[in-house]
Amino acid sequence: MTTTINPTPAAPRDRAALAAGLRAALDGEFHEFKQGLRERLDAETMVRPVGQDIDTAREWTTNSLRRLTETGYNTVGMPEEFGGTESFAHSIAAFEVLGTGDLSLTIKSGVQSGLFGGAILNLGNDEQRRRWLPGVMNLDILGCYGMTELGRGSDVQSLETTITYLPETEEFEVHTPTDDARKAYIGNAAKDGHMAAVFGKLIVDGTDHGVHCIVVPIRDDEGNALEGIELGDHGHKGGLLGVDNGTIAFHHVRVPRENLLDRYGHVSADGTYSSPIERRGKRFSTMLSTLVRGRISVGGAGASATRRGLTIAVRHALKRTQFTTPTGEPVHIMRYQLHQRKLVPELARAYAFGFAQNELMKSFQAVADGEGDETAQRELGTHAAGLKAAQTRWANDTLQMCREACGGYGYMAENGLTTLTADADVFATFEGDNTVLSQLVARGLLSGFQASWSNLDMLETVRRSAALVSNRLLERTTAKATIDRLVSIASRKSSEEKILARGWHVELLEYREKRIIEALGMRMREVLKLDKSEQFEAMNQCQNHMADAAAAHMDRVILEAFIEGISETEEGHAREVLIKLCDLYALSTIHDNATWYLERSVYDGPRSRGIAQAIEKLCAELTDDIEAITDGLGVEEKFLNSVIAQA
Amino acid sequence: MTTTINPTPAAPRDRAALAAGLRAALDGEFHEFKQGLRERLDAETMVRPVGQDIDTAREWTTNSLRRLTETGYNTVGMPEEFGGTESFAHSIAAFEVLGTGDLSLTIKSGVQSGLFGGAILNLGNDEQRRRWLPGVMNLDILGCYGMTELGRGSDVQSLETTITYLPETEEFEVHTPTDDARKAYIGNAAKDGHMAAVFGKLIVDGTDHGVHCIVVPIRDDEGNALEGIELGDHGHKGGLLGVDNGTIAFHHVRVPRENLLDRYGHVSADGTYSSPIERRGKRFSTMLSTLVRGRISVGGAGASATRRGLTIAVRHALKRTQFTTPTGEPVHIMRYQLHQRKLVPELARAYAFGFAQNELMKSFQAVADGEGDETAQRELGTHAAGLKAAQTRWANDTLQMCREACGGYGYMAENGLTTLTADADVFATFEGDNTVLSQLVARGLLSGFQASWSNLDMLETVRRSAALVSNRLLERTTAKATIDRLVSIASRKSSEEKILARGWHVELLEYREKRIIEALGMRMREVLKLDKSEQFEAMNQCQNHMADAAAAHMDRVILEAFIEGISETEEGHAREVLIKLCDLYALSTIHDNATWYLERSVYDGPRSRGIAQAIEKLCAELTDDIEAITDGLGVEEKFLNSVIAQA
Repeated sequence: MTTTINPTPAAPRDRAALAAGLRAALDGEFHEFKQGLRERLDAETMVRPVGQDIDTAREWTTNSLRRLTETGYNTVGMPEEFGGTESFAHSIAAFEVLGTGDLSLTIKSGVQSGLFGGAILNLGNDEQRRRWLPGVMNLDILGCYGMTELGRGSDVQSLETTITYLPETEEFEVHTPTDDARKAYIGNAAKDGHMAAVFGKLIVDGTDHGVHCIVVPIRDDEGNALEGIELGDHGHKGGLLGVDNGTIAFHHVRVPRENLLDRYGHVSADGTYSSPIERRGKRFSTMLSTLVRGRISVGGAGASATRRGLTIAVRHALKRTQFTTPTGEPVHIMRYQLHQRKLVPELARAYAFGFAQNELMKSFQAVADGEGDETAQRELGTHAAGLKAAQTRWANDTLQMCREACGGYGYMAENGLTTLTADADVFATFEGDNTVLSQLVARGLLSGFQASWSNLDMLETVRRSAALVSNRLLERTTAKATIDRLVSIASRKSSEEKILARGWHVELLEYREKRIIEALGMRMREVLKLDKSEQFEAMNQCQNHMADAAAAHMDRVILEAFIEGISETEEGHAREVLIKLCDLYALSTIHDNATWYLERSVYDGPRSRGIAQAIEKLCAELTDDIEAITDGLGVEEKFLNSVIAQA
Repeated sequence: MTTTINPTPAAPRDRAALAAGLRAALDGEFHEFKQGLRERLDAETMVRPVGQDIDTAREWTTNSLRRLTETGYNTVGMPEEFGGTESFAHSIAAFEVLGTGDLSLTIKSGVQSGLFGGAILNLGNDEQRRRWLPGVMNLDILGCYGMTELGRGSDVQSLETTITYLPETEEFEVHTPTDDARKAYIGNAAKDGHMAAVFGKLIVDGTDHGVHCIVVPIRDDEGNALEGIELGDHGHKGGLLGVDNGTIAFHHVRVPRENLLDRYGHVSADGTYSSPIERRGKRFSTMLSTLVRGRISVGGAGASATRRGLTIAVRHALKRTQFTTPTGEPVHIMRYQLHQRKLVPELARAYAFGFAQNELMKSFQAVADGEGDETAQRELGTHAAGLKAAQTRWANDTLQMCREACGGYGYMAENGLTTLTADADVFATFEGDNTVLSQLVARGLLSGFQASWSNLDMLETVRRSAALVSNRLLERTTAKATIDRLVSIASRKSSEEKILARGWHVELLEYREKRIIEALGMRMREVLKLDKSEQFEAMNQCQNHMADAAAAHMDRVILEAFIEGISETEEGHAREVLIKLCDLYALSTIHDNATWYLERSVYDGPRSRGIAQAIEKLCAELTDDIEAITDGLGVEEKFLNSVIAQA
């Protein structure tokens, strides 16, 4: 079976113009801001020399973080009244640009501004913000984000650290009751941190009010641990050599009452607890709100790192020759079909994720601006988790592929790829373990499921079953009119034409999503009928199904974002290339799930093989423009830090 | 649809006995030898401390290599007449045991004994072996294997280094004509090597006789580069910090005539070239014979490293709890369905690869012992390439999965996994890039294809087309009678019963292999009809198809080896567990290719979903025995080098 793919447009090619057009489209509304930052940041700040030992790496990273301050980077996303500039969304966009350079610097900056600063910003009162945020921004106060404990990685609700109110002295006592309760993997803990935002159970007069956050000084001006503070150093990790991760244990440490970040949970001098949020579950999820921004940021930085890896690998492949043709001509490795099959679909994914990230940043800003209800907030959390997991999984797989695509060169540190793979590795685990996040996304798709679990009896659940699946999350997230039109056009196309019909792609991804989630909803309904003692195992048997649901949902959301991105790009060469990249993204995603479609006879064998052939053809066609497509990813040459990628 | 899987046998479980039984089965005929070595080697030699800088790592590795000598390790696989012990196959088995420890040591040992020593052993004459092999074994002569050049990674036939005979002084001049011709990534070059086996074009009286190998001294006793030798240091790499990889360039370096390893290409004093092998192509492939042993060794060591990673991850998962059941019971993460789906199929693959590696070692020994014809040699090369690619691909993917499965712990260097992933990474590239090897395997499957390319005209090709696919490589490799019986039994089973019928698994893998290779053969026939100028692109379009053919062939060969392994294991608990592991391996492999089967309606949707359910069920059942299954992999506790894996 042959497929019909439009030939490459005959318009004269101008690589620079195409690259600029693609970059502007991919940056979207953040284009000017990002482009300014790319120009303003210098290699001295962004590029860490190869082969440093751990002490030198940490020192370099701390110094670079200070240099960043001079560029105004650290004030982005902070409120104007406290000396900040730009919006929250811009702070994520800035983090993406930072992520095209050294990832130790990126993560250290994220710990300081996004996590430590974010905790004060989101959970603190006005006085606390005024007290600490200026020092957060100018780095007078380097801080830690003390959430994770050794014994409880993902299970934040079970934190063991205690924050106990002592009315007699109007202080809180912060305490680590067991070895397992030590705060672990904490950035800035091993060397630089002077304060920590510490999460623990707030206990007032014997009552546990759940997880709250308090600011605790941990080092004196000379850098020594304060009394009662026990600091450990994790030493060497898989990567991120420049980030001083460590452990913190608190031995009956007393801090003033005014250090409790009390926006959502206040303790008065006489020991009366009050909160503007009645419901404990809701209070907990609000306390964790810093995680949402962290997840969006980490997903974006993981994607940036991958863009850098792809840029290095493509540049190498366009220079490197291996073997000759039967007529004796040397062959650039980018010409080999298998090399195209490795690199080109990931370039398409890079664009897809970029557009999806833009949509997510907009949703984040909207929620932060008070637009959208509680449901919108929950959806934001669901999509932040889903896109973080998708992008960081992709980062790990793709960076490893890029490393291998550069052969022996790829393994030499001077070419930049091994540090990238090592640094980005942990993105799959921190800010939410990807596997756990996939379950979180699935739960988000099942509306009212959490409520059903604890509150409703079986009959009530069954009665509410029609609403078990969240219809709102199944709705189009963006570009509604455009997509409806595309679907309608596709329905009138011949079977042959459908392969490249965008509406057909949408229909396929939508169908898979709905079927998987509906089936999951039905299984969940059965689980809820069970006795509590049987629920765990029955629920456990659904984990794989939940992961599938999460993936199917995100696949569709990402495709919609790509369509939205194209619809906002004006006619021209860049748009034409984006359409092909979207074809490749959509068909690759469909083909990755071909087993599912074929099992259900959604399409037949010949059609499936036609999709595979269309993918091969698109890879070959897009290779013609691969330099511009790669440049469009927005990674400045000065940040590549790779000998083989030099022009 | 439900599947019928036999319940776990009710026999009393004895973990130690089961582990011992599994280990003995997996070690096969090398059990006693491997077990002896595991006991003899100590942690001081095998376990490299975490967090070393590059100088310390190199020093540790060199010292450990010397300590190895004291254990007799270095003499294994060398001929008795030169002071060696055991067989070639045993040297590969020994390398596998070494690979359960530090990989820098493993690779440095491989460079010294397998590559440098192997070149002298395989390509040298008796006098040369006597002259150098004792020094290779006792480490008086540390040597390099100078094959790869910067500009030509996989394309060894195009090496640029010249070895030119100078009859006036009865010397050879070794020369590096361009920067790209520098020998690159050479182990022992940066620091320790005193000699190098250098591959280059042999030129005698103006005639290029193709690639030959010559021994060149490169450093004096003080460790300084000799005149005309330019040594470079690659410095930091992705991993293998203890291996001193570097570059070597030769500037008109003269060496005595007696240094040419001349078993397959001799130059007499007066400058007459002679070779026992007439055909140039055959001579080239013989010259590359060290690569076969290297590939088998590297594949095995990659598998060993993965066994260590799996052992660490499983031990952690059996200790670590996260979250609680609805009734408040803490849950070990090994109990989670998704954790089982990650780890258990890879344990099954670890066994599958182990049995396949045993078969390959036996074939290697048989060919070395002079059993088997030229076709058997070619088949050995094909299977060595295929299993190296399969095992090292698996190593990279699985070690990364293990790292992630240990969450934050997994990222801390002290837990062993990040060094493993970083070290094993390059296994995908060295000793033959995996992508290139996949093409080599496919070419091996197309009999006479190489010959057709250069010698036959189109008509002749078409006439020979019936033999285009190598029927011999499609034959059963092992356990013929057993497998024929299983296939015959399966054909009489009901549709429902087939899912766990081994004969059905074999039939499915065989069918896929034959169809893919036959279709490839037909495409190749068309390629051969084309004009030379069109052949490259047409051939290029087959690369993906060739990779599929290679994978399909190896999948079937590996399954057959597993069946052979089971057939050699006596009845009992270990055998029962092996059967289940083989079920899981076979069904996972089939399901990974479900798209292919469904596209061709080999089975239908419900059957495909039945297979997926059977996999889930097998994962859960095998989890009951997971400690013993992991112990059976043969990684000694003393070599784990992982805090979280401590008992």
